[in-house]
Amino acid sequence: MDTATRIEQALHAALALGEGPAGPPKLATAIRHAVFPGGARIRPQLCLAVARACGDGDPVLADGAAVAIELLHCASLVHDDLPCFDDATTRRGVPAVHVAYGERIAVLTGDALIVLAFQALAQAARHAPMRLPGLLSIVAQRVGAPTGIVAGQAWECEPYVGLAAYHRAKTGSLFSACTEAGALAAGANPERWQSFGLFLGEAYQVADDIRDAAMSTLLLGKPAGQDIALSRPSSATELGLQGAIAHFDALLARAVGAIPPCKGAPALRALVRAESERLVPEATVRTLAMAA
Amino acid sequence: MDTATRIEQALHAALALGEGPAGPPKLATAIRHAVFPGGARIRPQLCLAVARACGDGDPVLADGAAVAIELLHCASLVHDDLPCFDDATTRRGVPAVHVAYGERIAVLTGDALIVLAFQALAQAARHAPMRLPGLLSIVAQRVGAPTGIVAGQAWECEPYVGLAAYHRAKTGSLFSACTEAGALAAGANPERWQSFGLFLGEAYQVADDIRDAAMSTLLLGKPAGQDIALSRPSSATELGLQGAIAHFDALLARAVGAIPPCKGAPALRALVRAESERLVPEATVRTLAMAA
Repeated sequence: MDTATRIEQALHAALALGEGPAGPPKLATAIRHAVFPGGARIRPQLCLAVARACGDGDPVLADGAAVAIELLHCASLVHDDLPCFDDATTRRGVPAVHVAYGERIAVLTGDALIVLAFQALAQAARHAPMRLPGLLSIVAQRVGAPTGIVAGQAWECEPYVGLAAYHRAKTGSLFSACTEAGALAAGANPERWQSFGLFLGEAYQVADDIRDAAMSTLLLGKPAGQDIALSRPSSATELGLQGAIAHFDALLARAVGAIPPCKGAPALRALVRAESERLVPEATVRTLAMAA
Repeated sequence: MDTATRIEQALHAALALGEGPAGPPKLATAIRHAVFPGGARIRPQLCLAVARACGDGDPVLADGAAVAIELLHCASLVHDDLPCFDDATTRRGVPAVHVAYGERIAVLTGDALIVLAFQALAQAARHAPMRLPGLLSIVAQRVGAPTGIVAGQAWECEPYVGLAAYHRAKTGSLFSACTEAGALAAGANPERWQSFGLFLGEAYQVADDIRDAAMSTLLLGKPAGQDIALSRPSSATELGLQGAIAHFDALLARAVGAIPPCKGAPALRALVRAESERLVPEATVRTLAMAA
């Protein structure tokens, strides 16, 4: 089974834990709407890639960690799209959950997905409970306060925030959950895998800023995307489009350099290079930045 | 140390897990605002009372379960108070979190508290990981979809809901988490303790309905409280004030009858009787219902 299929199957199995004939139908439909169809599933892909690089000693536990992280990511998207945050009307090409099911169901969908993430992790660890406290702590720390994605979102409510701290919390933290949890699920030392995830996540957030600004440059002739509209810290605003691309390249190089020596390191390096081209495509974004 | 102090200390220790100099200050303050000062802390009290009745074999783990459940309860209150739900301006005599810190921080505070609850439970189970998958599953099931408190709240978004299913999900479920997790933390069989929690929780929700209707009867001369204003299912609306009190008494009797035989049963029965008088006071509510 390829990794993408393995991830979708594990997500379906996890969602089944939160479904049953006795539940309220709208919530159940909204939860599926928030998770399927997915995006690139880059976080669970990364988690499983690291588990594989570390020998894939416990695939069930690695699946549990990957699924938990993806469900937490989906929860954060549902809440980020709410009217009080980004007020986004679409997500992945379909109506956002609050548009399709109302604001109340959207709040509850995010809540239910957070709970389900930990439930799925516990379920996957039934045969290996010794690793559960560590895995759960890693995932919780990277999601909650003071430095996880919830904290990252909360920085948007503060009068001042440093760009690096903001990116680390908002995106880097969950990427480092992927690399750390993937390693721990396979029986490796998670601490050695933290930097790889942090650099990769920061690069991913910078790529988002770059695409946001590039899209606006393309459409409006000036960088005035969502980030500026919502007064969010953005690398493209702070460094300019070319500067942001240089920053992205540097972060990716540091990520690759932070991969600990292991049998699967070459495959991981290839994955990072493929992601780089997907995130900041040579043919469009880089060419545009040169011309700007 | 008395139980109330033990609970507050454990809550402070759990909140410290989500705090640090690197975090956004407003979120940290809002999280404390949501948890302190507390209400009656009836859920952690119940969890610890059951653990005690079962021999209190692992007080650290019981504290962890009690704290996780209270934090999840606090999270549900913060989200229930949001403008899209009850739009409540005060909670426990102080401004609701969304009033004091804004709607965005209120959404994130609820999210962070849910994460923190599972983190605190994992932390408390480091010395006893074998019990963590079971404890975590109990707590997650009683909070999430399809039958936990999140589902209970989601029933308010459906065109029809049966009163018993609604009460069971919205309140009974978390009370059964208390009794089941308290038992399991102490090494007892959680299933034997489920009914006690469910009946007690349902009684607690009926008592809420009764006080809501009684307060309105007292102030307005007719039962037109929050439940009717928000079109929520209410025992007092469905059964009348006297009928609802009879229903409450019956549920408490069933709760007491469901306490499994154990050394601590007499103390638990005394606790339930004391709660009964606190929830539906003889001198005010019952007298009022007789006169109505």
